[in-house]
Amino acid sequence: MSKTRTRTDRETRATDDHHQSVRLWLRLLTCTSLIEGEVRRRLRTTFGVTLPRYDLMSQLERHPEGLKMTELSRRMMVTGGNVTGITDQLVEEGLVLRDASPADRRAYLLKLTPKGRRTFGEMARAHEPWIVELFDGLSDAEKERLHALLAALKTHVLTVSRHDTPPA
Amino acid sequence: MSKTRTRTDRETRATDDHHQSVRLWLRLLTCTSLIEGEVRRRLRTTFGVTLPRYDLMSQLERHPEGLKMTELSRRMMVTGGNVTGITDQLVEEGLVLRDASPADRRAYLLKLTPKGRRTFGEMARAHEPWIVELFDGLSDAEKERLHALLAALKTHVLTVSRHDTPPA
Repeated sequence: MSKTRTRTDRETRATDDHHQSVRLWLRLLTCTSLIEGEVRRRLRTTFGVTLPRYDLMSQLERHPEGLKMTELSRRMMVTGGNVTGITDQLVEEGLVLRDASPADRRAYLLKLTPKGRRTFGEMARAHEPWIVELFDGLSDAEKERLHALLAALKTHVLTVSRHDTPPA
Repeated sequence: MSKTRTRTDRETRATDDHHQSVRLWLRLLTCTSLIEGEVRRRLRTTFGVTLPRYDLMSQLERHPEGLKMTELSRRMMVTGGNVTGITDQLVEEGLVLRDASPADRRAYLLKLTPKGRRTFGEMARAHEPWIVELFDGLSDAEKERLHALLAALKTHVLTVSRHDTPPA
């Protein structure tokens, strides 16, 4: 839809600004959820695995020193899911183990077992080319530009969010 | 972190491509979840309302003709939440009503009540400036560029996903 740009007063401009940002936010949300949905679908059809389960294993893979349940829950915020339930299942299947925490005797650390690491490795190797394929509509230069714009967005959002938090 | 670009063989390049797309995907996911988290926080502190509840009302606001439960659940995929549970609560609070469907006697349509429309209107009016503020780190030109890049991404992702779906 092409728009004819005309001189507008302050209120119309404000509304335009609103619309531009809101439209952008909806577009961002749509892209994320489309890609997430496709990855979710492929994980299910290829490996019979749910996205939260994949994400949980991927968090543990990135933290071989182990993660406390609270840390894991915080890191899983994006895809949610019942962290405790998924963990119990993975422990039962011998993919994840609970290890005593050296720092806190009442807590334990969650880690991938060697079998868990192998299983996750297979899925991750399949997962990467999916992401490449899904972003293949953009040239390398466009990807760089998108990455830079999102970097600026991220920095600003972090500043705004921090600014809001009342000093503890 | 600055990178020195060197001539690389095909395998290294392939890995670079992978990393570029995967890094981009993680950046996209991070931006979305940071903004979503901030909106979630503000809805909670300002209106004592959860994001899924806000999204459910926003779906109904966009569809004054009413939505079937199945349609509503599909549209709520992004932020999830227990659609039936939230709907029951909203009906009980007089913000949503169940209306007989003219097309299907066994189904009903969910609609906002006038009170629901008023309540949602207040939240939406507060919500828009938040989004404007969160995207304020980008100039208008950058917002346009980001929007265009995401449009290209969306188109490609839709093509890839459709292509995958076996003909019904």
